[in-house]
Amino acid sequence: MAVTPIAFPDPPLLNSAGVHEPWALRAIVEIRCGDGLTGVGETYGDAPHLALLAAAARSLTGLDVFDLAGLRSRVAAAIGTVDTPDRHGLTGGSSAAKTLARVVSPFEVALLDLQGKAIGRPVHALLGGKVRDTVPFSAYLFYKWAGHPGAEPDEYGEALDPAGIVAQARKLVDRYGFRSIKLKGGVFPPDEEIAAIRALRAEFPGLPLRLDPNCAWTVGTSVKVAEETAGLLEYLEDPTGGLAGMAEVAALAPMPLATNMCVVQFADLPESVARGSVGIVLADHHYWGGLSASARLATICDTWGLGLSMHSNSHLGISLAAMTHLAAATPNLTYAVDTHLPWQLGVDVVDSPLTFVDGDVVVPDAPGLGVAVDPDALARLHENYVACGITERDDTAYRRRFEPGYEKLRPRW
Amino acid sequence: MAVTPIAFPDPPLLNSAGVHEPWALRAIVEIRCGDGLTGVGETYGDAPHLALLAAAARSLTGLDVFDLAGLRSRVAAAIGTVDTPDRHGLTGGSSAAKTLARVVSPFEVALLDLQGKAIGRPVHALLGGKVRDTVPFSAYLFYKWAGHPGAEPDEYGEALDPAGIVAQARKLVDRYGFRSIKLKGGVFPPDEEIAAIRALRAEFPGLPLRLDPNCAWTVGTSVKVAEETAGLLEYLEDPTGGLAGMAEVAALAPMPLATNMCVVQFADLPESVARGSVGIVLADHHYWGGLSASARLATICDTWGLGLSMHSNSHLGISLAAMTHLAAATPNLTYAVDTHLPWQLGVDVVDSPLTFVDGDVVVPDAPGLGVAVDPDALARLHENYVACGITERDDTAYRRRFEPGYEKLRPRW
Ligand SMILES: [Mg+2]
Ligand SMILES: [Mg+2]
Repeated sequence: MAVTPIAFPDPPLLNSAGVHEPWALRAIVEIRCGDGLTGVGETYGDAPHLALLAAAARSLTGLDVFDLAGLRSRVAAAIGTVDTPDRHGLTGGSSAAKTLARVVSPFEVALLDLQGKAIGRPVHALLGGKVRDTVPFSAYLFYKWAGHPGAEPDEYGEALDPAGIVAQARKLVDRYGFRSIKLKGGVFPPDEEIAAIRALRAEFPGLPLRLDPNCAWTVGTSVKVAEETAGLLEYLEDPTGGLAGMAEVAALAPMPLATNMCVVQFADLPESVARGSVGIVLADHHYWGGLSASARLATICDTWGLGLSMHSNSHLGISLAAMTHLAAATPNLTYAVDTHLPWQLGVDVVDSPLTFVDGDVVVPDAPGLGVAVDPDALARLHENYVACGITERDDTAYRRRFEPGYEKLRPRW
Repeated sequence: MAVTPIAFPDPPLLNSAGVHEPWALRAIVEIRCGDGLTGVGETYGDAPHLALLAAAARSLTGLDVFDLAGLRSRVAAAIGTVDTPDRHGLTGGSSAAKTLARVVSPFEVALLDLQGKAIGRPVHALLGGKVRDTVPFSAYLFYKWAGHPGAEPDEYGEALDPAGIVAQARKLVDRYGFRSIKLKGGVFPPDEEIAAIRALRAEFPGLPLRLDPNCAWTVGTSVKVAEETAGLLEYLEDPTGGLAGMAEVAALAPMPLATNMCVVQFADLPESVARGSVGIVLADHHYWGGLSASARLATICDTWGLGLSMHSNSHLGISLAAMTHLAAATPNLTYAVDTHLPWQLGVDVVDSPLTFVDGDVVVPDAPGLGVAVDPDALARLHENYVACGITERDDTAYRRRFEPGYEKLRPRW
């Protein structure tokens, strides 16, 4: 059982919490079995989470790889009732249940990888079975600086206005073939972001568009933006915070609202359904407790007529594979899946990453996840982690370094 | 792939549809793989269902045993959009979706049995993992005739009043150790059934009691019975029909309402939750689409704070094993499970049936379901089927043979 924190270069992507730091953190979980098989999982790399992962890992020696109930009970016993909120808050509120789900997740993925290898079947076969051969992903646009202050501009350059966003979209679409587009908003006053959406619609008339300001707006602003983007958006994601505020917006918005911030654990679902807060839930196995828990979330969405999409934080190829298997086995996952992966510019921890072809990832049918850790890459990325000095993601503090007056405000407008 | 209809002796158990016929029907599904492994499932044996099972079976040749999505899609294609309601209506309304779920179920169980055997793990490991080592079952009391008309009385004899019901309960509790009791009601005027509940409470002061009249009552009668049994019942099951009526009763009843008649498919859940129709759902893998679908139902109940119990029709040892594995892997299944099995008086289709010890079944940890079909027993039970002349369960017609004026009325009181 090995939990290895890693860091990889990350561009200065802007969001409602601040700006991405030069290094993004993750942790790689490897479970080695006596029979020589190894299973892998990928999760967050923040220090409080790493401490819980270490405690969890210590508790798992001797566990049968098919005993997911044993995984949950051992991890629960190992970490206790602890709550480790993210500083950035980009995945919504925190709780002890969500913390437990987040710690269980990479081990569950690694065990599913092992199960698949042991029985010679892909992970999707363990999640209810493959219902599609390819999984569509979406282009994930960010307002961004040209490069990190003091460093060279990166290959995508600056995007601080509609023209910059359209140019970035063009690059991503041409390079990867994405057939839907998401803009991370909450960075500039809403009118500027609406202008960016209009510019994207003009440039890509056929592609579904999404806008996600991460709760940067009041209810009133959200309703106003929703009205002004009527007919332009496939969905509007987390315009405002909380189930009550989202319900107010949803009642007036012409498009469905989506969330990965106000419905982030099973306990959030009853109130959300009762209020009609959202029309679409973005699953994320990294904090919903793993792939099998996410599959159960999917059944709930299907039962209540909620749409289902998938959320992404900065990630590498193990998470991409896990997301692809989940999407492959989830009939009602009908929206293109979010991914930050193109922003990692080819850096990866797996030796043969899955790739985007016409915006899709071909679902792997090899045993397990179908990807393997490259030990040299893992060692290099771990060295990055040791050297970079970042131990907990803090987009706000990083942005304040260059704009001392900057504050994380939700809502800001 | 073999689908074998069988029949086994059944006592004259009374319910709101009439009375059990002398033979109960089931069908046994056997899937034999090229490598010599066999997986088994058990389901209903009514003619319309058998026809669908046969069509489904023909479509499954060559399916990978781990491909549950392929199972669902092949069966759906094979049977089309067909709806085969039960005549008795004891499991509530019917639909094409429920019919599909009912046809998929025994094949899913057989595939899980095969998966478990292939990987050397019990079925509960494929359903999320074992969370308990024993599963409690409940004593299932029926008003009954002494024996079928023209035949000798059976060993349980007549139970047509409180004293008869208490004597029956005493026999079942002494013989099997059950620690909770369910009375099938809807047979006599409510006051008589309330008297039976009072008599059971006096005789078994410590045991939880349930009453299930299968929608025999109006809303008004249901509320009256609920008030008169306040403090006596663990739950009141399907006193009246429909989500609206159940909600009216639930709002006034002092105990939770349970159902296996108004929430019988995923599509029933949103309205039930919105109305507050029931506090407890009885899962039944035979019509919820199999064990993995039932596990997802369990997650929904857990998420919405609904209790979870388990329903039974007349069944044999394969179903008992399947129910036990599901219960073992379902953390929130906290009620004792219903079973008709004692009424089959030891007749079974498996060679070493699971048994009740102190009311519990010890969860099998052998690969697969942990039970195997006895080929001689299967042949004998199939001969019964051929000889008995019953091809579709009809409790009402059978009762009318002896009481020509009898009608199935829901509500009756
Ligand atoms: Mg989001
Ligand atoms: Mg019932």
